[in-house]
Amino acid sequence: MTRLAVEKKVLSKNDEFAALVRDRFRERGTVAINILGSPGSGKTSLVERTAAWTRGRVPAAALSGDQATDNDARRIREAGLPALQITTGNECHLNAERILAVLDAPEVRNARLLLIENVGNLICPAAYDLGEDAKVAVLSVPEGDDKPEKYPALFQRAELLVINKIDMLALTDFSVDRAVAHARSVAPHLDAVALSTRTGEGLTLWFQWIENRLART
Amino acid sequence: MTRLAVEKKVLSKNDEFAALVRDRFRERGTVAINILGSPGSGKTSLVERTAAWTRGRVPAAALSGDQATDNDARRIREAGLPALQITTGNECHLNAERILAVLDAPEVRNARLLLIENVGNLICPAAYDLGEDAKVAVLSVPEGDDKPEKYPALFQRAELLVINKIDMLALTDFSVDRAVAHARSVAPHLDAVALSTRTGEGLTLWFQWIENRLART
Repeated sequence: MTRLAVEKKVLSKNDEFAALVRDRFRERGTVAINILGSPGSGKTSLVERTAAWTRGRVPAAALSGDQATDNDARRIREAGLPALQITTGNECHLNAERILAVLDAPEVRNARLLLIENVGNLICPAAYDLGEDAKVAVLSVPEGDDKPEKYPALFQRAELLVINKIDMLALTDFSVDRAVAHARSVAPHLDAVALSTRTGEGLTLWFQWIENRLART
Repeated sequence: MTRLAVEKKVLSKNDEFAALVRDRFRERGTVAINILGSPGSGKTSLVERTAAWTRGRVPAAALSGDQATDNDARRIREAGLPALQITTGNECHLNAERILAVLDAPEVRNARLLLIENVGNLICPAAYDLGEDAKVAVLSVPEGDDKPEKYPALFQRAELLVINKIDMLALTDFSVDRAVAHARSVAPHLDAVALSTRTGEGLTLWFQWIENRLART
């Protein structure tokens, strides 16, 4: 079998698992958000910030994917959200089978909102449906506003672009408008919010997006 | 054939091409540096900065890998270095076959120093030998000092860790010492330099490393 044929088979098997995961989410009324972005773009920080917001509002939990270490799940638990780490070893992305395997964990069972933090990578994770309701692409200011054109697949599959670390704008030549324009040139219908997980600026826009997403499901 | 078996076969085929590339580099006296790091870590900026340094010192050229666009090669040419773009489409890394295919291009033929900027990704490119003399891992301050432990493969295969964007240290809780300690916990013999491609601070350490590398071959 050629490499391409094997990849196609792997993806089609993944789609079967994703359909099972999606059914379970529907039964339970779970809204699952698959958060993707480069290493260090601020995915874990975004989940930490969201942890505080969910308290008293909505039962929430997180899954965190990395090749090694359980640092992220630990950080998220310290922020007050039930969280499980999924270590992927050699794999550069989460897949639906790994999500299915943890669906009955007590941390996950009762979540109305499930935040899935993918492995830090702009490329591979975009190809894998995890049964989520929406993919969110996190792009941070120091990465540069040209990234959506260079890695189009992720932005085309995302529903929302989160531009993070706007507190660093003054130290770069990043333009929020240009980043959004680049992203919309490959993904015309993409929503966008700009925020800083460090200072908290703009977070209300992200929380509003989650509320709208919860209201729809 | 299983997925793992296909991957093994792809990697072993890559090693054959890498051996051919390495022979050609030896014949020509080319020292090739494979530069790896996240999207936006500053790989292109590092090559741009190095372009100015090579002028009058050493015949140099660059290859630049991306999934789409030739933005990076254009930037590098504007900085004064002959440069070719290699677009990889779906692939999340360069491979030796793609390097072999451009070895006779006039931009590359006469280079004593060849800087190869890989696709922005901490995971996949680390597995592919390009026939290079050394891999260099670029980690930028906004990404966080914990990345070497989370993505060990790249740091284990690199000869040098370049910590970039030290002009942003004050805006983060990144510690250069902690980053180096994390990196050495998975790769004890790794060299490290800290610099800012934006302000130029620390660049002499990088140029010194290149000079030492050239002196050895």
